[in-house]
Amino acid sequence: MQMEAYLDNSATTQAFQTVCDKVVQMMSQDYGNPSSLHRKGMEAEQHVRMAREIIAGSLRVSEKEIFFTSGGTESNNLAIIGAAMANRRAGNHIITTPIEHASVSAVMGFLEEQGFTITYLPVNQYGIVNLRALEQAICKDTILVSVMYVNNEIGAVQPIEAISQVIRRKKPDVLFHVDAIQAYGKFVIRPRRQGIDLLAASGHKIHGPKGVGFLYVRDKVKIKPLLFGGGQQNGLRSGTENVPGAAGLGEAVREIYKNYELKVDYLYHLKERFTKGVLKLEGTRINGPMYRDGAPHIVSVSFDGVRSEVLLHALEDQGVYASAGSACSSHHPMPSATLKSIGVEKEYLESTLRFSFGAFTRVEEIDYALDTLGKLLPVLRKFKRA
Amino acid sequence: MQMEAYLDNSATTQAFQTVCDKVVQMMSQDYGNPSSLHRKGMEAEQHVRMAREIIAGSLRVSEKEIFFTSGGTESNNLAIIGAAMANRRAGNHIITTPIEHASVSAVMGFLEEQGFTITYLPVNQYGIVNLRALEQAICKDTILVSVMYVNNEIGAVQPIEAISQVIRRKKPDVLFHVDAIQAYGKFVIRPRRQGIDLLAASGHKIHGPKGVGFLYVRDKVKIKPLLFGGGQQNGLRSGTENVPGAAGLGEAVREIYKNYELKVDYLYHLKERFTKGVLKLEGTRINGPMYRDGAPHIVSVSFDGVRSEVLLHALEDQGVYASAGSACSSHHPMPSATLKSIGVEKEYLESTLRFSFGAFTRVEEIDYALDTLGKLLPVLRKFKRA
Repeated sequence: MQMEAYLDNSATTQAFQTVCDKVVQMMSQDYGNPSSLHRKGMEAEQHVRMAREIIAGSLRVSEKEIFFTSGGTESNNLAIIGAAMANRRAGNHIITTPIEHASVSAVMGFLEEQGFTITYLPVNQYGIVNLRALEQAICKDTILVSVMYVNNEIGAVQPIEAISQVIRRKKPDVLFHVDAIQAYGKFVIRPRRQGIDLLAASGHKIHGPKGVGFLYVRDKVKIKPLLFGGGQQNGLRSGTENVPGAAGLGEAVREIYKNYELKVDYLYHLKERFTKGVLKLEGTRINGPMYRDGAPHIVSVSFDGVRSEVLLHALEDQGVYASAGSACSSHHPMPSATLKSIGVEKEYLESTLRFSFGAFTRVEEIDYALDTLGKLLPVLRKFKRA
Repeated sequence: MQMEAYLDNSATTQAFQTVCDKVVQMMSQDYGNPSSLHRKGMEAEQHVRMAREIIAGSLRVSEKEIFFTSGGTESNNLAIIGAAMANRRAGNHIITTPIEHASVSAVMGFLEEQGFTITYLPVNQYGIVNLRALEQAICKDTILVSVMYVNNEIGAVQPIEAISQVIRRKKPDVLFHVDAIQAYGKFVIRPRRQGIDLLAASGHKIHGPKGVGFLYVRDKVKIKPLLFGGGQQNGLRSGTENVPGAAGLGEAVREIYKNYELKVDYLYHLKERFTKGVLKLEGTRINGPMYRDGAPHIVSVSFDGVRSEVLLHALEDQGVYASAGSACSSHHPMPSATLKSIGVEKEYLESTLRFSFGAFTRVEEIDYALDTLGKLLPVLRKFKRA
């Protein structure tokens, strides 16, 4: 059997066994509808409540501040559209960055059509947002700032606390939304201490189920719902709760934050091994922050004279799975806005792959991927020249 | 061990074993992200495509017309808000009924705030919409008609084809949305022949997973998305596809429409046995259509002089699970709009329970529920008089 190296954990992850078990239990045994008034309903509701407690505990917030959604995209949409619509009378100005995930940037496009004005802050070569520019951008019409915690393509980690301090100093009532989809489970996140009002996360990025995520909404922050119906989840997110999804997500959170330091250290260890190995290969460069300056699970590599797609498929043939661009976006990868924003030269924009690690990634996979790269790169370059 | 009778299948159902197996397979083995360009992504996408084919086949429509959502609520919201926003220039008038599920009626409330005008058609004592009133209501500003296929509280089945004929005759460009959440899997639905433009269904009502549903959007019908992001599902529904959910739903559809007539006959058999039995008890009456005039799985019963909640909890103590009102709505049941609309007298509005059956319901459960009702009702009435 061919060796495999799944290095696309920022796209999605394999679920933990305990997550699978939980999901099946909710589908086949405790399958009640939390809105039902009888025992079967109460039991199901209890599982949702437990998951909410686990998540709230991981962030040191109250359970009432956690709302389950259908995933990261809905969490980001609900946060941004919900905040914009609820605060329309206070102003129509929103601040964000040019390196956000599509589930933020596409929402900004929608809000522009709805009459909102969007400011995109510059970022430096490591993808870090310019705090002075933020301070200057905040004006009397500003109602929301949205900045991702960890960039999904290069692993840049934003100075979340410093950003919220700038906001609080300049205009305290501006809401601060953080897309934490690539950060949750990899960082200790404390929304209260860090001054975060809205925080989005997703299940399937942390070995939980697909089709489920959550949004943290700070107490007293008012946002409008996107979906209308039975009034579940305090009216903010109607629809029968995805009990297996929520319970499975709770299980994933419990697991990922258990021996958390060890797990993150292990990811950094994998990252270091991969980074050092890849830099030993001819004609390679790392985009964005290196080693512990960036997130523990993402490495963006540009390869001289090799097109991303060609390399991606050559790797795939050898059982090594990586991503061109963010891979979250669609089947038609466009030149990455993130890479352009951090100043990657044109010739490298389409010669870049993302490698990302997870709890199931083994050291052997890293070594196999490096070995495979070492063999493929000269061949592909020779082939190209021929 | 206490005998149990789960007669709340309209609230939610136990998943088929094959559905659980499929979901676990997608979480632990074929866990790729369909947007990834490598084999793991393709495999995942292939499972989503297969599910889409099964669903499209069950409706005799094209796979391109099926869009996965996070459930019935999102399907109804996307259909109605999406159609309203896309056709705003053509008019601002929408027609519906007073007996729709909250995931339709609450959306109508939202659209009223947005400047749309909503007409609620009268229904008769069996919950059937008045076709003449529909014809009269359609005007030059009408853009959408939304009528549910099967009512979730009394099992009324609307004359879908006749409704679409009235629309086509009077104003052919009006869109016709059908909430089929209680109908799909229980009826042979043919959107093309029946003139349906938008059709919503949910997984967990047909022994599929919670947190997943679909919307059929007839070819060439344009609706606006609710969620923005990576542009998945042709831009209509961004967000990483819920692969386990979609594949599990496909499996449920395959199962539910296998030996379909036998399964529906079995449900009607259960319904008849239950209805006859309950009518033999003193002081009971059935709301809405009887036997084969209604849906195969729903019976609404009013009980003289017994409050719904008291009976519900007394039944629960004996392991019999039913619903007060639709149970989909929330923990605070209000007097049912459906029961009021079909003219149920005030004294019975809060003395009504819904019993609903599914593929796992056994004849013994029906008999046990009837037996339990027979024992409880005299006691509860005596207790009340005392």
